[in-house]
Amino acid sequence: MADPRFFKRAGPFKLKDLARIGSAELGDGSDPEREFVDVAPLESAGADQVSFLDNRRYVDSFRKSAAGACLVEPALADRAPGGMTLLLTKKPYRAYALIASAFYPEVAQAEKRHKTAIVDETAVIGPGVSIGPGAVIAAGAEIGAQCQIGPNAVIDQGVVIGEGTRVGANAYLTHCLVGRRCLIHAGVCIGNRGFGFAMDPEGFVDVPQLGRVVIEDGVEIGANSTIDRGSGPDTVIGAGSKIDNLVQIGHNVRLGRGCVLVAQSGIAGSTRLGDYVVVAAQGGVAGHLTLGTGAKIGAQAGVMRDVPDGVSVLGSPAMPARDYFKVVSNWQRQLKAKDKPDD
Amino acid sequence: MADPRFFKRAGPFKLKDLARIGSAELGDGSDPEREFVDVAPLESAGADQVSFLDNRRYVDSFRKSAAGACLVEPALADRAPGGMTLLLTKKPYRAYALIASAFYPEVAQAEKRHKTAIVDETAVIGPGVSIGPGAVIAAGAEIGAQCQIGPNAVIDQGVVIGEGTRVGANAYLTHCLVGRRCLIHAGVCIGNRGFGFAMDPEGFVDVPQLGRVVIEDGVEIGANSTIDRGSGPDTVIGAGSKIDNLVQIGHNVRLGRGCVLVAQSGIAGSTRLGDYVVVAAQGGVAGHLTLGTGAKIGAQAGVMRDVPDGVSVLGSPAMPARDYFKVVSNWQRQLKAKDKPDD
Amino acid sequence: MADPRFFKRAGPFKLKDLARIGSAELGDGSDPEREFVDVAPLESAGADQVSFLDNRRYVDSFRKSAAGACLVEPALADRAPGGMTLLLTKKPYRAYALIASAFYPEVAQAEKRHKTAIVDETAVIGPGVSIGPGAVIAAGAEIGAQCQIGPNAVIDQGVVIGEGTRVGANAYLTHCLVGRRCLIHAGVCIGNRGFGFAMDPEGFVDVPQLGRVVIEDGVEIGANSTIDRGSGPDTVIGAGSKIDNLVQIGHNVRLGRGCVLVAQSGIAGSTRLGDYVVVAAQGGVAGHLTLGTGAKIGAQAGVMRDVPDGVSVLGSPAMPARDYFKVVSNWQRQLKAKDKPDD
Repeated sequence: MADPRFFKRAGPFKLKDLARIGSAELGDGSDPEREFVDVAPLESAGADQVSFLDNRRYVDSFRKSAAGACLVEPALADRAPGGMTLLLTKKPYRAYALIASAFYPEVAQAEKRHKTAIVDETAVIGPGVSIGPGAVIAAGAEIGAQCQIGPNAVIDQGVVIGEGTRVGANAYLTHCLVGRRCLIHAGVCIGNRGFGFAMDPEGFVDVPQLGRVVIEDGVEIGANSTIDRGSGPDTVIGAGSKIDNLVQIGHNVRLGRGCVLVAQSGIAGSTRLGDYVVVAAQGGVAGHLTLGTGAKIGAQAGVMRDVPDGVSVLGSPAMPARDYFKVVSNWQRQLKAKDKPDD
Repeated sequence: MADPRFFKRAGPFKLKDLARIGSAELGDGSDPEREFVDVAPLESAGADQVSFLDNRRYVDSFRKSAAGACLVEPALADRAPGGMTLLLTKKPYRAYALIASAFYPEVAQAEKRHKTAIVDETAVIGPGVSIGPGAVIAAGAEIGAQCQIGPNAVIDQGVVIGEGTRVGANAYLTHCLVGRRCLIHAGVCIGNRGFGFAMDPEGFVDVPQLGRVVIEDGVEIGANSTIDRGSGPDTVIGAGSKIDNLVQIGHNVRLGRGCVLVAQSGIAGSTRLGDYVVVAAQGGVAGHLTLGTGAKIGAQAGVMRDVPDGVSVLGSPAMPARDYFKVVSNWQRQLKAKDKPDD
Repeated sequence: MADPRFFKRAGPFKLKDLARIGSAELGDGSDPEREFVDVAPLESAGADQVSFLDNRRYVDSFRKSAAGACLVEPALADRAPGGMTLLLTKKPYRAYALIASAFYPEVAQAEKRHKTAIVDETAVIGPGVSIGPGAVIAAGAEIGAQCQIGPNAVIDQGVVIGEGTRVGANAYLTHCLVGRRCLIHAGVCIGNRGFGFAMDPEGFVDVPQLGRVVIEDGVEIGANSTIDRGSGPDTVIGAGSKIDNLVQIGHNVRLGRGCVLVAQSGIAGSTRLGDYVVVAAQGGVAGHLTLGTGAKIGAQAGVMRDVPDGVSVLGSPAMPARDYFKVVSNWQRQLKAKDKPDD
């Protein structure tokens, strides 16, 4: 079970309730009243625990698992060990997410303003807000109901944060409007002046960065990521987008809804992403480009041109995935052919 | 206009004054006494606002813009919409920077030491210094006149900071000497021990890192970037250099004057950069190399060898830009030729 | 000498003692009683200082050095300038590390709990612990003897830290168990929820991240690095591993003993590294892979497949080092041949 120092568990739940929570079907011969007390990985789950199989790499662990119940695609049901109760669903990972959330619900922090928090008298703090030790809320900031502001986080002047948003320890927010139910992890920096300056023989001339960062509802931003404010237009992070750790987003970038930026990826200034764009780990996108809805940028890819809707690109410089595989296969072929001169 | 929650605007300014500030010429038929109240992007600027065209990508927005006045290169003046007042300059972006700075001047914070700031009694604090809530200034540190130390920033023992430098929230400075008028953003870590250790069958042996970080005047360092102190020699950041977010600089690195390191780039230990070297986003430079004055390192490039003065390199491993374009074009050519065996 | 504002020097030491400390042999004709007062780089060392030559790039500096004594491999001894005392060892860098540590021993901070530190009454604080200004230690946390917790660092609920571990300024630790004698630098974020969510037409569904981060003894973690907690299993960092700045480690990753992850590298979720794996700067490793003991991943390499024990890979996508060199040399060859059609 999850370490009780860090997690509080609910339950137990009956099988029929878990099926309902996870929108799964009960496998043949299962007992809907059977109780389960926890979720667990395939390798360690026991008779009163629920596990899941989502990745075919782990079919072998599934075969050997002692889990009492398991979420699994119908197509893989016949690989189950004898005696395992099955919860059948085409989306076992999603179902696991919902069931695990039932066992381990988010614990809302009680309303509290730690005595060492520094809250400016002109700041507007909604009901139910929790403000950690050493946190700073500057003049004119507005913190929505049920927000949680972590220890030593700094919310600078005029920043607006919507209801239910959580801000991690040591995060810094300035020049931004943040939506509802966002999750901003520790160490994140939002709203710093963008990297804007004009070249000049006598040195660089800083360009005032007069925009903001607008973060829509339900956005998650991973630890130590950085999002610069716009130079005039705003930098916009579309609703429901998921941003991982150590990601960089330059000024004036606009993300559509539901974009996913994996760790250490970066988007240069003024580039626009449609909805549901994925940028894999360490991928980079140059400035002033447009990535269409559903575009997929591979890990470490370097995007130098617009990417149309739904197209996957790989490599640096990035090219359509099919071309990239051919290019790499040509490298491999030339390796094998190296005894023969090819020029 | 810029969000008044975050920005205070000056003005209005007469056209003749804007021309002077931006070193621009008035276009034919313009009224030098006409007043303007703000700067704005081409798309949203109105009749009493000033915009700029700097990137040919945006000529179409220029044609359609309702901006009352626009900074533009003489060569593009004939693309202007009827009735637009032109401010002609060969450096419209630089001129915009100067004019926008006139409308939105930096607001110096008043001298203040927040009551929750922890300032060691042996620290030396110059006149006009602003120290935010929860900031820590340790023993023997020296903070020059008019410095601004952000909330929860930590200035460790003996650190010296020159006049007019601003340090962002949650930044950490140790073992360093910082020049005048620097801008160190939130979350930056300067002066940590470098990544120095000797291999050994019984484990790694840490090598004491006995140098400092020396940051010359007018340097900007982006959010969450990290600069390690030297191992014996110092790590040096040359005057006027611009460092973006999430950049890593290893021990003993020396940057010349006016270098530009774009987001997520990294310079490994003991490498020396001449003046005005540019490393684009996610570029990496191996250790113990020399990059000559004006060298340009492309985005995601991986530099394994010295780069002579003024040379541009691209790719990983990095090669002269011209070679890189040929290599990539060979890949493309082989794609097209793939129906024919080439070996 | 090292700047006395930042470093306290011990000594002087006699040559015979330095030889013992560094496990080095005295060169011919040297005086074992001769005293030395400091270590210094080859370029600046004087007659009463000890230097070292470890990298053949710097033989020229060695020839010209005025260092009174120098640690050097026997094979390079004949390049020494006349009059230089030699300390002969096959591991001059390791010997230097030990000798420099004698001159500049770690100064343990005295037991102290700064009056502005916020320590929950249920936290357990061992003897000799130093807690900096503004640091936060939450309910149920356990801090081992002689730990040092930096200014404004935040140790969240239930976190356990072993004896003698140092945590830097503004670091954030949650959901983790940290071993003894670890060095966690400023701005590090450990234990945030991993990047786990299920896709869904109605939006992403967060997957509870129910594991921890387990950091074994003697681990070093560089500034602003991020380590996510496991999703169910733990994320584990093996004993003695060295992690540089701005490194990302995803959920469920397991590092063996003595791994080295250089700056800006990243390991995606559920990947396992054996012992003594090295990932060079900006290298990336995809998820669910296994890197064998002693595997070496080159700078900027992109690992998409398992890597067997002891194998070095380079490039993106990563391939065995020998293949990579051939691939790159093919690119170069095709450049030279470009006047002739090769297809």
